[in-house]
Amino acid sequence: MTIESTIKEMARAARIASRKMAGCSSVKKNEVLLKIADKIEKESSYIKEENKKDLAFAREKKLSGAMIERLTINDSTIKSMADGLREVAHLNDPVGSLSETLQRPNGLSVSKMRIPLGVIGIIYESRPNVTIDAAGLCLKAGNAVILRGGSEALNSNKALAALISRALDETGLPKKAVQIVPVRDRAAVNFLLSEEEFIDLIIPRGGEGLIRFVVENSKIPVLKHYKGVCHVYVDEGADLKMAEDICFNAKVQRPGVCNAMETMLVHKSAAQNFLPYMAKRFLKAGVEIRGCLETCRILPEIVEAVQDDWPAEYLDLIIAVKVVEDMDQAVSHISKHGSSHTEAIITSDYKRARRFVQEVDSSVVLVNASTRFNDGGQLGLGAEIGISTSKLHAFGPMGVDELTTTKFVVFGNGQIRE
Amino acid sequence: MTIESTIKEMARAARIASRKMAGCSSVKKNEVLLKIADKIEKESSYIKEENKKDLAFAREKKLSGAMIERLTINDSTIKSMADGLREVAHLNDPVGSLSETLQRPNGLSVSKMRIPLGVIGIIYESRPNVTIDAAGLCLKAGNAVILRGGSEALNSNKALAALISRALDETGLPKKAVQIVPVRDRAAVNFLLSEEEFIDLIIPRGGEGLIRFVVENSKIPVLKHYKGVCHVYVDEGADLKMAEDICFNAKVQRPGVCNAMETMLVHKSAAQNFLPYMAKRFLKAGVEIRGCLETCRILPEIVEAVQDDWPAEYLDLIIAVKVVEDMDQAVSHISKHGSSHTEAIITSDYKRARRFVQEVDSSVVLVNASTRFNDGGQLGLGAEIGISTSKLHAFGPMGVDELTTTKFVVFGNGQIRE
Repeated sequence: MTIESTIKEMARAARIASRKMAGCSSVKKNEVLLKIADKIEKESSYIKEENKKDLAFAREKKLSGAMIERLTINDSTIKSMADGLREVAHLNDPVGSLSETLQRPNGLSVSKMRIPLGVIGIIYESRPNVTIDAAGLCLKAGNAVILRGGSEALNSNKALAALISRALDETGLPKKAVQIVPVRDRAAVNFLLSEEEFIDLIIPRGGEGLIRFVVENSKIPVLKHYKGVCHVYVDEGADLKMAEDICFNAKVQRPGVCNAMETMLVHKSAAQNFLPYMAKRFLKAGVEIRGCLETCRILPEIVEAVQDDWPAEYLDLIIAVKVVEDMDQAVSHISKHGSSHTEAIITSDYKRARRFVQEVDSSVVLVNASTRFNDGGQLGLGAEIGISTSKLHAFGPMGVDELTTTKFVVFGNGQIRE
Repeated sequence: MTIESTIKEMARAARIASRKMAGCSSVKKNEVLLKIADKIEKESSYIKEENKKDLAFAREKKLSGAMIERLTINDSTIKSMADGLREVAHLNDPVGSLSETLQRPNGLSVSKMRIPLGVIGIIYESRPNVTIDAAGLCLKAGNAVILRGGSEALNSNKALAALISRALDETGLPKKAVQIVPVRDRAAVNFLLSEEEFIDLIIPRGGEGLIRFVVENSKIPVLKHYKGVCHVYVDEGADLKMAEDICFNAKVQRPGVCNAMETMLVHKSAAQNFLPYMAKRFLKAGVEIRGCLETCRILPEIVEAVQDDWPAEYLDLIIAVKVVEDMDQAVSHISKHGSSHTEAIITSDYKRARRFVQEVDSSVVLVNASTRFNDGGQLGLGAEIGISTSKLHAFGPMGVDELTTTKFVVFGNGQIRE
C-alpha cells in the first residue's frame, strides 16, 4: 500500500470510529482511560524496551541531549503518563450536555448540545508522552484521533498505541479510535493534512517551524500555538516586593517554557527603586539582562538591548527590560512585540488593572500573578492539549471542552414556518 | 498603488480600527448602528441612483434575472436594511462579559472574558443588502470588517460604505472599521486571503464555487457554509398529519434556500398510509417527486430516483423520497448523503427522538418541527451572518456571539507558581 492510501484508509477508519465514540457513555470512556493507565504501568518494561530502540537510533542520528531527554521513557515518565490518564478520567465529561436552552414564542425549545469534534489529527515531535496525553484527552472528549509523532519515537509510539488499542478492544470501543501513523516518511504529514473530508481538526505541537509548515500545508482547520513572548508590566505605584517575586517566578522558575516572561516593562517612576533589587536577584540566578537605554543608565553593569531583543522568545535565562513612560506605552509595546500569549500587570491601581485586562489582546491576561499560570491545570481546565494563540474556536489553554463543539437541538410539537 | 498594496493598507488600517472598536461601549456601537439606519433611509434616492449604475452594467453583462433581482435596491430593500440594523442595535452586546468564573485553591480568580475576534473579511456575491447586514453584525460584536462584494455591486456598495463611514465618523468611531474593497479585479480576493497577519477570520457567503475557492486559497481561518442537503425522517408510528404538514412546509414554503428539505425518508411501516396523501399535496403544489423503488411501487405516477438524486441540493420544487427499513437506515443514509446542515425526525417515540438527536451529526437537529427553522432569527440568535456546516468555532447559525471569542482573565494578589 502506498503512503497516501495508508493515510486515507486510516482517516476513513477514524471517521467510522468517531461515530461510535460520539455515542459512547462517560462510564465507558473513563473505563478505557483507566485501563490504558494500568497497562502502561504493567507493561512498562516492554515500553522501555521499545523506547531503547528509538534511543539507539536517536544517538546514531546524533540528536541533541535535550531531544534525547524528551524522547526517553523511564519509570518517572511511565508514572506521569499513567497518572495523567487517571486525572483525565476524573474530569467532567462535557459531551451531551445541553446549554443556552430557550423557549421560542412558537413553543420550540432550542438548546445547544455539546458534541465531539469528530476526528482530530495531532502532529508533534519525538515526545512519546504526548502520544498518551493527546490520546487520553481526545478519547475523553469522544473523538477519534490520528497521531503523528516525530519519526525518532516511532517504536515507542507503536508500543503505546498497541496498548491503547488493546484497552479499547477490551472495553468494547472501536480500536481505530486511536491510530498512529506507522511510517517515518514526512510525506505522510502532507497526505494527512489533505484529508479534509475525514479529519475535522489538526493540532500541531512543537516548534515554530513545525507549526508554520502545518498551517501552510493544511486544508483542514488548524489550532495553532505559536511562540510565547510574554510580558510583565510593573506599574507606577505597584507593590515592588510583589513585583519582584512575580517577575522572578515568571522568568526563573522554568525559563524554557512558553509562559515564561521574556520582557519586563517598568513604569519610569518605579524603575529607580525597583530595578536595582530586581537585577541583583536576576543576576544572582544567572539571568542575563538586556536593557533599554534608561535601564542601562540605572543598571550600568548590564548590556544594551538591540531591536531583535524585543520580539525574542529566549526560552532561556535571558530577559529584555524596558522602562516605559506610562501604561499606554506598555500596552502598545506588547501589541507590537507580543505574541498574544500571556501578559501580566503588577499594579495597585484599580482603574489601570481594569484597563490592562481590557486592552491587552492576549489569550491570558493576569493582574498581580505570574505568567506561569497560563496552563490548563493551573487555570482549572484539567489537562491541556496545547495553548491556542489564535482566536478562532479557542484562545488560550485548550482542555477537554475545547476538543468539542456544539450543535443545536430543537424540540417541537408540529411547528412549521409561517 | 497596486491592488496588493491597496489591500495590505486596508488590512493594516482595519487592524488599527479593530483595537479601537474592541474598547468601544455598547452605547456607542448601538448609536452608530441606528445612525447608519437613518442615513440609509434619508439618502435612499442617492443609494438607488448608484444602484442603477450597477443594474445597467449587470444588464449589459446579461446577468440572470435572479442575479439582477438580488442586486436591486428598491424601497423595500432600503426598509429591510434599516430595520435589520435597528434589530441588531437592540440585541445584547456580548463583549466584555465574564463567564465560567472559578476560584482556584491558591486564591486566583479565573474567568473567560468575551472579546471581539478582531478583523473579519467577508466575501460575497452581488447582494448589496449583505454589505449592511454584515457590517452591522461585525460592528455590534466590536470587530472591524473588510467587505468584498461581487464586482457587479461595486457602486451600490461604495454608496453604502460612504454612509457607514460618515456615521462612524460622526459617532467618534474609527472610519476604517468598515471598508469596501474598491476594485473589481478578482486578484484582490487572493491578496485579501493572504493577509493572515491582519485578518482573523474570513467568511465567504455565496455558492459552493465561491466557498471552495476561498477555502482552497485562504491562509486565514475560514468559517464555511456549504450546501444544505436537508432530510426529514418520518418515523414508524409518527403522527402522519403532523408529518405531512412539516414535510410540506420544509419543501414548499421556500424551496430555494439552504434549510429547505431535499430528501424525505419514510419508515416502511408508515409509507403505505403516508405517501399517497403526501404525494397528492406535493404534486398539487407542483413538486416533482423522485422515489426509490418502494416509493415508486406505492406511487406509480412518479419517476425513479437515480444515484445523483440522493446527495442533490435541488433548491427547487423537486424532492427525493426513500422508504427505509428502520431508523438506523435513515441515520446512515443521512450520514452518507447529508451535508451536516439540518435534519428533522417526525416521531411519537421518546427513545427514538432522543437517539436521532444524539446520532445525527448536523448543525441543527429537530424533533417534530420543520427544517426551515434553521435560521438565526428563528432560533433566537437575532440576525445571522451565515450558517456554519463545519464544526470548529461555530456549528449552525452564527449570530453576534459567534463573531466574538474569549480570553482568560486572571485576578491575583501576588500568586507565583510553586
